[in-house]
Amino acid sequence: MNLTEQMLKLARQGKAASRQLATLTADEKNQCLAAMAEALEKNAGAIKEANARDMEAAAEHGLSAAMLDRLKLDDKRIAGMAKGLRDVTALPDPVGKVLEQRVRPNGLKLEKVSTPIGVIVIIYESRPNVTVDAAGLCFKSGNAVILRGGREALESNRAIAQTMAEAARQAGGRFPEHAIQLITATDREAIPVLLSLTQYIDLCMPRGGENLIRTVADCSKVPVIKHYKGVCHVFVDAEADLTMAAGIALNAKLQRPAVCNAMETLLVDAAIAVDFLPRIAPQLAAKKVELRCDEAALAQLAAWKAELRLKPASEQDYFTEYNDYILNVRIVRGVDAAIEHINYYGSSHSDSIVTANEARARKFLAAVDSAAVYWNASTRFTDGAEFGMGAEIGISTDKIGARGPMGLEELTSYKWMGIGSGQVRS
Amino acid sequence: MNLTEQMLKLARQGKAASRQLATLTADEKNQCLAAMAEALEKNAGAIKEANARDMEAAAEHGLSAAMLDRLKLDDKRIAGMAKGLRDVTALPDPVGKVLEQRVRPNGLKLEKVSTPIGVIVIIYESRPNVTVDAAGLCFKSGNAVILRGGREALESNRAIAQTMAEAARQAGGRFPEHAIQLITATDREAIPVLLSLTQYIDLCMPRGGENLIRTVADCSKVPVIKHYKGVCHVFVDAEADLTMAAGIALNAKLQRPAVCNAMETLLVDAAIAVDFLPRIAPQLAAKKVELRCDEAALAQLAAWKAELRLKPASEQDYFTEYNDYILNVRIVRGVDAAIEHINYYGSSHSDSIVTANEARARKFLAAVDSAAVYWNASTRFTDGAEFGMGAEIGISTDKIGARGPMGLEELTSYKWMGIGSGQVRS
Repeated sequence: MNLTEQMLKLARQGKAASRQLATLTADEKNQCLAAMAEALEKNAGAIKEANARDMEAAAEHGLSAAMLDRLKLDDKRIAGMAKGLRDVTALPDPVGKVLEQRVRPNGLKLEKVSTPIGVIVIIYESRPNVTVDAAGLCFKSGNAVILRGGREALESNRAIAQTMAEAARQAGGRFPEHAIQLITATDREAIPVLLSLTQYIDLCMPRGGENLIRTVADCSKVPVIKHYKGVCHVFVDAEADLTMAAGIALNAKLQRPAVCNAMETLLVDAAIAVDFLPRIAPQLAAKKVELRCDEAALAQLAAWKAELRLKPASEQDYFTEYNDYILNVRIVRGVDAAIEHINYYGSSHSDSIVTANEARARKFLAAVDSAAVYWNASTRFTDGAEFGMGAEIGISTDKIGARGPMGLEELTSYKWMGIGSGQVRS
Repeated sequence: MNLTEQMLKLARQGKAASRQLATLTADEKNQCLAAMAEALEKNAGAIKEANARDMEAAAEHGLSAAMLDRLKLDDKRIAGMAKGLRDVTALPDPVGKVLEQRVRPNGLKLEKVSTPIGVIVIIYESRPNVTVDAAGLCFKSGNAVILRGGREALESNRAIAQTMAEAARQAGGRFPEHAIQLITATDREAIPVLLSLTQYIDLCMPRGGENLIRTVADCSKVPVIKHYKGVCHVFVDAEADLTMAAGIALNAKLQRPAVCNAMETLLVDAAIAVDFLPRIAPQLAAKKVELRCDEAALAQLAAWKAELRLKPASEQDYFTEYNDYILNVRIVRGVDAAIEHINYYGSSHSDSIVTANEARARKFLAAVDSAAVYWNASTRFTDGAEFGMGAEIGISTDKIGARGPMGLEELTSYKWMGIGSGQVRS
């Protein structure tokens, strides 16, 4: 079978499975998920063996220690994956929810009901736990999934996917044979070929660095929900409680700098910059944060020159997701200037205003065009678990389909059901 | 300015306008819409003159009488466009609705709030009234719109768009100068260039024939919501009330055959075919409907050979949207076979089951993967007005973003607003 035939086969099988999946009850799905969780733990030995083969090859290929750590599976991580599946099992079924209901004057009853999307392709990089998360969330939401993990994790992913599918099959019931499929072809061309099959594939979600996402989006003929970078901002307004503002700014930058909802640029109103910046300087100095500042901020922080790593900010810096101990600092005049900066340089992810002035806060919340906007809270809350979604498959920076954290509900579409008693149109 | 610069300018202007639009109040938007409606009527003379120029050129280019009729604007049609805008004015603002609300254990209040999508490109064919509908619906939902009508309607569309924008500007308030823009470049290349500008354009909606939609979808780098063909089905189950079934089937085929929600294939359960088919044969014969039948249906209808236009159906026929007095007739055994046929040959638009058996109806409603599924009602109801949406910009056969009829609500996205009192993540 050549590559096109292979991809066509996966896609057709996925579509057929999605038809069956759409009719499974919550109980049937939960039984399968519980069996998958158990099987992952039971089969930990075989999974670790497969992972060892990946690790060995990866070490030979000179993967960095950080990458090797992401790839590695041990009993604790496998238990974590099983727990993730059990958590998903416990969540309510997102399919079949009546989202809206109306009766038309002619007596026709209309219901807008949540449905699975269909067949979802998920493309991701090294961590093998994504295989479990993605397969579990897609299955619970009634979607057939086609997984494409990193080449370096192929053996691990294969062992995990086979374990899950086999366990669900043995759990009895109506588990569709191809509900969870893994692409084992490592050709680069597999993705463009698969993502041209619009009659079978309903959605693609790439997870990983900006380059991966852009490459997938560029080649895909099926809809792609993109999880681009997070260039997040905190704006400290002239009427902010400066103690609160310091807490939020430091949390947004320092609590976990490597993630997409961490702050990359701090905007400070000119009116309070001289009072505010010294409040956060000690902690920033303690963590050796490099500050890339506009001229005004550089001037304000001149007294801290010895303790802080100060640099002038370039235009490009304001567009950059550092994921690191680096922070842009810019002094702005008023909330309008802050909004303008964020909408121009930001990535529509998460942005926060700290202020006691409600009108200004409301303006910020309405005008900042981002998936999550905060008033007096840290940007770090943009996260499925923090939002009470139970689990998350990513954070969409798109506006069509889901926006922001994507849990089970965000993996559904809907249909209209019209229930009549013989109504015809006149 | 070359084409790329022109498109970049339109796109940037659209994005800037969308920022302002997102902050307009319902009153501000309604004032503009009312002014637009009035101006269309006041300016009818100039609009008709522009239209006359289009009509003349179109006649010279040999457009068919049907196409010329679609293109023509008279006072009645202009009044109809103004009425359409007034109807949209009267609808509730779809922006700023709180779709969900929750308070997290840490006290952070989360609200999921509807927002405009941003900048929408609408590509359509001859009828100039689409210019008014699309501009009105996009404006009311807070979206900047970039319109690309048919080349043959350019003068008419230009006069309409200018009238609307000028009226809104004069209505005072904060109408953003580039909220409604029209592409006047007639180059074919304009569309792929514009639809590569993912940083400014949020969505594209092509309206027209399947070829137009496919061409746009193929070249676009921005999300496209597709309004593909309607290959709609009615399935007459073994337990159908045959009088009701006849009424629904005839309505679905004959009430307006040229539209996307008309039936193209009638599926009849083998158990009742012999009773059912003769009930609809007279009306089908009276309307000279060509019936393309499978062998079993041909046999059942043999007695009507003289009155009916009978032909054997080909495989390809089942995939075809006729939009005409042609109907496929196929005998199937049971609801599962009907579901399988519809999911395989259908276009995920609108499909109906007629039955008195609730379990079978529920199975059909759940398993048929279409935007609208009916039980004991005609497929012809899939329509914004019939659904109570007030107005419609199309009927999506996609599953990401809106599905089925798209009114104002379906032209929105959402954002999460987090309102705190200093919460940070630990």
